[in-house]
Amino acid sequence: MTDFFQGIPQIQYEGPQTDNEFAFRHYNPDERVMGKSLKEHLRFAVAYWHSFAWEGGDPFGGRTFERPWFGSQMALAKLKADVAFEMFDILGVPYFCFHDADMRPEGQNFAENTRNLEEMVDYFALKMEASQTRLLWGTANLFSHRRFMSGAATNPDPDVFAFSAATIKSCMDATAKLGGENYVLWGGREGYETLLNTDLARERAQAGRMLQMAVEYKHKIGFKGAILIEPKPQEPTKHQYDYDVATVYGFLKDFGLEEEVKVNIEQGHAILAGHSFEHELALARALGIFGSIDMNRNDYQSGWDTDQFPNNVPETALAYYEVLKAGGFTTGGTNFDAKLRRQSLDPQDLILAHVGAMDICAAGLKAAAAMLEDGRLETARTERYAGWDSAEGQALLHSDLEQISARVVAEDINPEPKSGRQERLENLMNRFL
Amino acid sequence: MTDFFQGIPQIQYEGPQTDNEFAFRHYNPDERVMGKSLKEHLRFAVAYWHSFAWEGGDPFGGRTFERPWFGSQMALAKLKADVAFEMFDILGVPYFCFHDADMRPEGQNFAENTRNLEEMVDYFALKMEASQTRLLWGTANLFSHRRFMSGAATNPDPDVFAFSAATIKSCMDATAKLGGENYVLWGGREGYETLLNTDLARERAQAGRMLQMAVEYKHKIGFKGAILIEPKPQEPTKHQYDYDVATVYGFLKDFGLEEEVKVNIEQGHAILAGHSFEHELALARALGIFGSIDMNRNDYQSGWDTDQFPNNVPETALAYYEVLKAGGFTTGGTNFDAKLRRQSLDPQDLILAHVGAMDICAAGLKAAAAMLEDGRLETARTERYAGWDSAEGQALLHSDLEQISARVVAEDINPEPKSGRQERLENLMNRFL
Amino acid sequence: MTDFFQGIPQIQYEGPQTDNEFAFRHYNPDERVMGKSLKEHLRFAVAYWHSFAWEGGDPFGGRTFERPWFGSQMALAKLKADVAFEMFDILGVPYFCFHDADMRPEGQNFAENTRNLEEMVDYFALKMEASQTRLLWGTANLFSHRRFMSGAATNPDPDVFAFSAATIKSCMDATAKLGGENYVLWGGREGYETLLNTDLARERAQAGRMLQMAVEYKHKIGFKGAILIEPKPQEPTKHQYDYDVATVYGFLKDFGLEEEVKVNIEQGHAILAGHSFEHELALARALGIFGSIDMNRNDYQSGWDTDQFPNNVPETALAYYEVLKAGGFTTGGTNFDAKLRRQSLDPQDLILAHVGAMDICAAGLKAAAAMLEDGRLETARTERYAGWDSAEGQALLHSDLEQISARVVAEDINPEPKSGRQERLENLMNRFL
Amino acid sequence: MTDFFQGIPQIQYEGPQTDNEFAFRHYNPDERVMGKSLKEHLRFAVAYWHSFAWEGGDPFGGRTFERPWFGSQMALAKLKADVAFEMFDILGVPYFCFHDADMRPEGQNFAENTRNLEEMVDYFALKMEASQTRLLWGTANLFSHRRFMSGAATNPDPDVFAFSAATIKSCMDATAKLGGENYVLWGGREGYETLLNTDLARERAQAGRMLQMAVEYKHKIGFKGAILIEPKPQEPTKHQYDYDVATVYGFLKDFGLEEEVKVNIEQGHAILAGHSFEHELALARALGIFGSIDMNRNDYQSGWDTDQFPNNVPETALAYYEVLKAGGFTTGGTNFDAKLRRQSLDPQDLILAHVGAMDICAAGLKAAAAMLEDGRLETARTERYAGWDSAEGQALLHSDLEQISARVVAEDINPEPKSGRQERLENLMNRFL
Repeated sequence: MTDFFQGIPQIQYEGPQTDNEFAFRHYNPDERVMGKSLKEHLRFAVAYWHSFAWEGGDPFGGRTFERPWFGSQMALAKLKADVAFEMFDILGVPYFCFHDADMRPEGQNFAENTRNLEEMVDYFALKMEASQTRLLWGTANLFSHRRFMSGAATNPDPDVFAFSAATIKSCMDATAKLGGENYVLWGGREGYETLLNTDLARERAQAGRMLQMAVEYKHKIGFKGAILIEPKPQEPTKHQYDYDVATVYGFLKDFGLEEEVKVNIEQGHAILAGHSFEHELALARALGIFGSIDMNRNDYQSGWDTDQFPNNVPETALAYYEVLKAGGFTTGGTNFDAKLRRQSLDPQDLILAHVGAMDICAAGLKAAAAMLEDGRLETARTERYAGWDSAEGQALLHSDLEQISARVVAEDINPEPKSGRQERLENLMNRFL
Repeated sequence: MTDFFQGIPQIQYEGPQTDNEFAFRHYNPDERVMGKSLKEHLRFAVAYWHSFAWEGGDPFGGRTFERPWFGSQMALAKLKADVAFEMFDILGVPYFCFHDADMRPEGQNFAENTRNLEEMVDYFALKMEASQTRLLWGTANLFSHRRFMSGAATNPDPDVFAFSAATIKSCMDATAKLGGENYVLWGGREGYETLLNTDLARERAQAGRMLQMAVEYKHKIGFKGAILIEPKPQEPTKHQYDYDVATVYGFLKDFGLEEEVKVNIEQGHAILAGHSFEHELALARALGIFGSIDMNRNDYQSGWDTDQFPNNVPETALAYYEVLKAGGFTTGGTNFDAKLRRQSLDPQDLILAHVGAMDICAAGLKAAAAMLEDGRLETARTERYAGWDSAEGQALLHSDLEQISARVVAEDINPEPKSGRQERLENLMNRFL
Repeated sequence: MTDFFQGIPQIQYEGPQTDNEFAFRHYNPDERVMGKSLKEHLRFAVAYWHSFAWEGGDPFGGRTFERPWFGSQMALAKLKADVAFEMFDILGVPYFCFHDADMRPEGQNFAENTRNLEEMVDYFALKMEASQTRLLWGTANLFSHRRFMSGAATNPDPDVFAFSAATIKSCMDATAKLGGENYVLWGGREGYETLLNTDLARERAQAGRMLQMAVEYKHKIGFKGAILIEPKPQEPTKHQYDYDVATVYGFLKDFGLEEEVKVNIEQGHAILAGHSFEHELALARALGIFGSIDMNRNDYQSGWDTDQFPNNVPETALAYYEVLKAGGFTTGGTNFDAKLRRQSLDPQDLILAHVGAMDICAAGLKAAAAMLEDGRLETARTERYAGWDSAEGQALLHSDLEQISARVVAEDINPEPKSGRQERLENLMNRFL
Repeated sequence: MTDFFQGIPQIQYEGPQTDNEFAFRHYNPDERVMGKSLKEHLRFAVAYWHSFAWEGGDPFGGRTFERPWFGSQMALAKLKADVAFEMFDILGVPYFCFHDADMRPEGQNFAENTRNLEEMVDYFALKMEASQTRLLWGTANLFSHRRFMSGAATNPDPDVFAFSAATIKSCMDATAKLGGENYVLWGGREGYETLLNTDLARERAQAGRMLQMAVEYKHKIGFKGAILIEPKPQEPTKHQYDYDVATVYGFLKDFGLEEEVKVNIEQGHAILAGHSFEHELALARALGIFGSIDMNRNDYQSGWDTDQFPNNVPETALAYYEVLKAGGFTTGGTNFDAKLRRQSLDPQDLILAHVGAMDICAAGLKAAAAMLEDGRLETARTERYAGWDSAEGQALLHSDLEQISARVVAEDINPEPKSGRQERLENLMNRFL
């Protein structure tokens, strides 16, 4: 045992009335809702990067955190893993997620990166033997190193594409070896700073081909997990190609991948794209590409990615309502791609941020389940569209403009609007929040 | 002749130095650039709705304009047309665009709407015989009447779908009869106010089917023009299904329409969607769905659709640069979906707003053509991606992750980043502005 | 009795478990919290304009509501008042607010406006005799009529200033006669569309003088209520002079009015200005100008004023936390400057929107009171600044740069940062939500 | 001479037609406009931090630039200064600006910081003897080091206030010693991340007192330059106390400093605050607190501070129009608080970014001067308000509500709106762009 979390107990469920900061008030992992335990429903994951590799910097200031594992030696990378698994254990969290660059020191070239990664994967595998925490997903960091400054798959330099492809392979291998349930691609630099130096069509084609290669490789190695794209509209780039769910869908269709790839949707990214989180979830469900979520909020008044832990139950409830309507997670889960505020320096802050977030999600999921079980919201929705379920309604869709026009004239169809009842539905929803 | 524009002369080109407000300084219709006249390049169109039907209201106040043709009688609709064609003539503008609702008084039902529309179409046809102005596109207003408050194609009530389908047919007929070169669909209410009462998947399917019907009808009647969708992210709805170019592309792919339908891109809508206008144009070009433009800017600090006349040459130049790279307009053109500020009460304001906008566009197009003819921007772009044009670069795209990984190791590929030279390219561009 | 709300019962408190849509679940008017009843704390008010005068239009469509009182005759204005007081009674709401233009038909000139207003004030006075509902505040609509298109106090035409001044007098008289507890000024057109035609310094001086006149008149007639300014950053104008609380404060200081005028803060306006509602409340408290609130939310993803009924308890709780810290309302209250969605056509929608909003506010206030009574949040805050309460801390503020510099060197002051504990405080807050 | 800019010639004015990238096309320093040379009008300054200390990092990636002077030794700090003065010379730029932290290596404590700073100030003084470049302003970096993470003047820990005060003194001393014409305060961390842990009133009072101390010290040491506050709405904080010009004005009034302190307005910050740059300039002029400008644009579609070199003449023209109307700069100037894009790696990029920016500003200033000399814009503005210049107009402002009301009735004042002519004025403006 390291002494980083010294004095911090394992977090237990104690119920809403507890005065113990170091206890769950809503997240009782074994509580059953709609036929599954909360643990099975929520499938919480800790983000290795924000919790263990991020140093507290921002564009106007440097490191604020002082962690004993900061540095670039392999021994420190292992100390970091030791502390991380201690936190997984304290929280009882079933999953974690990683990038290669979080896990291993940066090497001088690809070969050294791979050796470092492989050594750390072995170390992680060992840690996992002694832990109940599993790997939700792995991913490659193809955005931090300066070689990726102009993109990875979409780089004007084919050598960077090659370096990226090799890195994706190594990260898919690592993910597979650690039993990961998904492999995620976030295109942090797959976009542009200015159209003046950008060949958008070419870059888009490169990105499509890289994704095809990842899918081909998945099948080749028999990786059973899902391949997920994580949309984000911008930042660090001025425009990112994976802007939002709708954009990713068109991209997948274009490259014949809509049956192969799903989306990992982040609340903060949804907001930065001008959507609500529940919109992105509902759309992904409608398009058949819902995969997993990053449950970290964005401050509504900040125009950049704030990656904050969730803290608003009505918002998480609306999100899980869509997740439950999509049938719940299969390979996906609830990752906290969230970082402490850079002023939150203490080990306790790191633990309690997760405790609060897990509680907020559990409360949200239970509220969502109650809404669904109550059924009135869905009944109201179904009734609103009932006309379309009639034979006449369905026939309309198989008709044509001329026939319809003739019918409108013949029957003098002159529809009278009906109330959309938004406020009543909001009241109904608020019964459960 | 009506007396509305009394005393306003026909606008002539007088060159940059003229002191005459009622003259073009940049738009010389016959000036030839890259093998075509400015008139052929720009294909200007006046929007009938904003210029003649809009009353100057906003959410906090009513009508400010006092036009002699305001009112709902057929005679006033004809007076409106008389004045409009006088303006087309004063401006020498080659095109106009219309909605049914701009043109004809609202009837009691579909049949009366159609009769009114047909009578006005005949009147317009007569006017056009005496005019050089042609129809760029027609469209149906499926958003202003209360029957459309919950959508047209996407309405929960099939009767509204039917009414909308019949109206689209009547507007396509009107467009065809008037020789329109395109037919546009803007889904002003094809979206939602709240997900609580919305079946997103169903509404999307309804919208897709309606679009298919329009395409089928086009072929049936032998309409040669293009079918165009006009994306907008929101407003009046909280979310509109035709959010942006990328979203529309996915939608077209899903309904098998990507070869049949193109986009009419509006600068203001691009900005509201978090994009630049040139991004939307470049993307449409890359996806093969570029059609036409609405050249009206949005105030950058207003979060709603301000529909202002363009007034910034660097912005129009970047837009026409993309248009020219796409090969220029075929059926499309430059529509001013722009309205006067509601304080701009005078007939002169209406004329001069168009004069200024046409000049700004002409200056922008000439700058764009000069940039293209200069060639340095495109050369720099081509050189940046030159590695991809090599046999090695192309082979890479046909390789797989394992082969690439092996090569990266074997050759110790470790790419060094090269400058993106953004500021130098901006300087270069500014030579022409 | 009119038959508009036929069949709708008086709303009673039935507690959280009730299944009755037409009952309060949280708002028990007589429930006592921190020494006052909820009714006294919350001081709810209905906005006459949105609930009774707004027709359901938006920039893309016209009237959707069909109310029997729509029209411009005096008899209809009285019918409207009859229905409104029925609603006040059904809701048991202690207050309402009005503009002159909501109340009376528009006349041909100021004299007719005033006669109409006076007749309606008499009618309202009669209604109030039979009702328990009182007037929270009155205000003048100086933005809807076309004469105000370029501003009221800030108009380039002194005659519009004069018309506006006369109208303010008539509205202050009406407010005083009806026993109003405040008089509000919202400068809907006190801003500009373009700086090109605007003399900002002059317009600001005009606005300052008008506000002084209103204050002078208040004292002259012995009106005991507060004068309140309602900040908004923009819309309908591109820029409104009363941008936000900080801007209004500087304006009041400049015109010597900081002791005379307070602010009426709207949640939606705070958000449009790039702030949180609680920020604006906290700042107004810090500056000593907190007055009253408009508790209507803005959709976070819409860039215009959506004026929606509140529906998120964590948000209302944070707002009332600031209100309670400011000592609660004195003359102010909780006005719902909220309108139904334009698809919410039914009388039930109007009632239930208010029922839901009142419940959300009651739940928020109770949560806020519980947080305050718990005390841990305030204790944490106090402790964070404890260093400043020491003699040394206070001495620092009375020192100078040289003395401080010498001390920093002499004592080698080299402060170590301490955790800001944001996530822990969010967890603590969430105990009460 | 270092070899960093090897092969780059001194930049000379060659006129608009030159094909030489390394020449000015618009900035002829000696060209006279409205009685002053362009050099005297524009007073260009290079920002030492962005050009020489920034490493090319962003929140998603680290250093991209490789500069021979990166590192923390004093010798490297001097090499950096050598290169910087070479650039000042190449550009012929009359001014630079600095933070202490750009100039000197970070020490272990305040005393070492001060020693390092003093040594570097002496070195700069030497460099300046051999250079024509002078100091426009100095400032203290009170935001990058972790000790400032919770604010400098507004820190909950008085020791941080003390450290900050001492640092401000040292930076004011350095500025005075180097003959600086202004001293700037930007409160990068003077704001909050969450209201939950913030005592806004207390922090505001601390900030006010610190500013008073700076003003007192200025007078004590006889520093003749101006003290300037640089407003910014947010980032890195969620809310910064110096939000915008209007907010700063209220703050200055509150602490009795409105005659002592002016503002340094940045285009990018104006945009992030929801304003146009010209608005902030016009307001500062109206309030009598206009000081200086940071002429770096923000990308309109990015929600964070992008600090880009200006590249749009219509925008710079509108800005300089306000500057000229304010009488031009006195102690202030045009600072480029702009950084290269992180992909712009080459020394040439750094030079040419400044060349382009200086040209864009020169073109803008010349256009602005032409507009002013033409006079039509100002005449139109004056005429619009002419009614207010009459005796009647002025009397109105000295009247009261009762008198005015009586007059409105007696004279039946019923003003008819007049066109605001926005589009015509935009056309007029565009004549000069």
